[in-house]
Amino acid sequence: MTTSAKPWRRGKHSKVRRLPERGAYDRETIEAILDEGFVCHLGFCTDEGPVVLPTGYSRVGDAVYVHGAPANHALRTVGTGLPVCLVVTLVDGLVLARSGFHHSINYRSVVVYGTATEVRDPVEKCAALDAVVEQIVPGRTADARGPSDDELRATRVVRISIDEASAKIRTGGPKEEPEDVEAGGIWAGQLPLTLVPGVPVPDDPLVENLPVPGYVTHYRRPSGDLPARL
Amino acid sequence: MTTSAKPWRRGKHSKVRRLPERGAYDRETIEAILDEGFVCHLGFCTDEGPVVLPTGYSRVGDAVYVHGAPANHALRTVGTGLPVCLVVTLVDGLVLARSGFHHSINYRSVVVYGTATEVRDPVEKCAALDAVVEQIVPGRTADARGPSDDELRATRVVRISIDEASAKIRTGGPKEEPEDVEAGGIWAGQLPLTLVPGVPVPDDPLVENLPVPGYVTHYRRPSGDLPARL
Repeated sequence: MTTSAKPWRRGKHSKVRRLPERGAYDRETIEAILDEGFVCHLGFCTDEGPVVLPTGYSRVGDAVYVHGAPANHALRTVGTGLPVCLVVTLVDGLVLARSGFHHSINYRSVVVYGTATEVRDPVEKCAALDAVVEQIVPGRTADARGPSDDELRATRVVRISIDEASAKIRTGGPKEEPEDVEAGGIWAGQLPLTLVPGVPVPDDPLVENLPVPGYVTHYRRPSGDLPARL
Repeated sequence: MTTSAKPWRRGKHSKVRRLPERGAYDRETIEAILDEGFVCHLGFCTDEGPVVLPTGYSRVGDAVYVHGAPANHALRTVGTGLPVCLVVTLVDGLVLARSGFHHSINYRSVVVYGTATEVRDPVEKCAALDAVVEQIVPGRTADARGPSDDELRATRVVRISIDEASAKIRTGGPKEEPEDVEAGGIWAGQLPLTLVPGVPVPDDPLVENLPVPGYVTHYRRPSGDLPARL
């Protein structure tokens, strides 16, 4: 994905206030998390209250693209220029402390504040849809048939400008009260969790027995973390 | 977790409008998804715009509990009685169609609409915090030290009533255009993805060499799906 040296604005929205030592604002860290994920949670406000949509996405330069059917009410609403808050969260493990209080989750998350606008230009639309496929399965657009004009018309694409962004990361073992450690007797530590691909299930009505593409058999996210434990 | 036979209200907020065949409103389906997850995305509206918080949670009966530090600005705001939209999303796999257009993700998600209020009663607070630990690591509260009075005071707990809820589920292989199947030559199918636990990392400064608890070595989510592919 495209990378620019300019850091995103660190505004009052995106400043990590709690546990500021877990906050990160550099572009490289933020882009790496946005590029490793492929499902985001997109929040916006309507007259009827808050809405959060879980959806696939792609990050291209300073924007995130989401898409859906033209009749998708939520996407139509958000694409009218609403301010949005978009979050990508990657869960890396569980942290078991000796006290319930210090239990935690190891994670990497990015919060983006931006503005959502509908993409009408067919060239940008096409590029955004290809980018969504590539975000989910890197390498796939070389094989899959691209969108027809009818399919393009049957897809609403929304561009979210990344106006402000911040990352929050927790790694490592439990924080403990010294007296809990001294007392001993309670196992504590981390349990890593990884999203691991299973055995591909071909959809093969013609019994073509095509070979499974390498980007499927060796599926991994951009960080290379996946499938670390296969 | 507690289960009541009464279905949640299927209001205009929570009705699945797009692809209604993927929608589910029965309590058993919704509770199973809420109980299998342990990270939610909590959305609400402030004067400055929408906010989405990724956070651990627990589901107890008709409520979801989240917690944080008393100085956590977002939690303090939401706990004043704001309407919220809370989403739990479980990713089950990738769906590779012959066309980019029909690529998809297999998932189970629940969207909850409710009202957030701060919990001040220490008994409910304690129960909610134990439930959060149990949601993340079932079985853990039997071993971990419970919260002290100081820790209870140092924790803000927010209760989200489940006023409306709906589930959305996609399973199975790709939808295809008949002409794409007839044309042949492009591999299509599913790639299952599972969150799999790795090797526990003990935090053991006293070199106690305590045995790793069974709920860690045999960690699995309530559905039993995890660790299906270890």
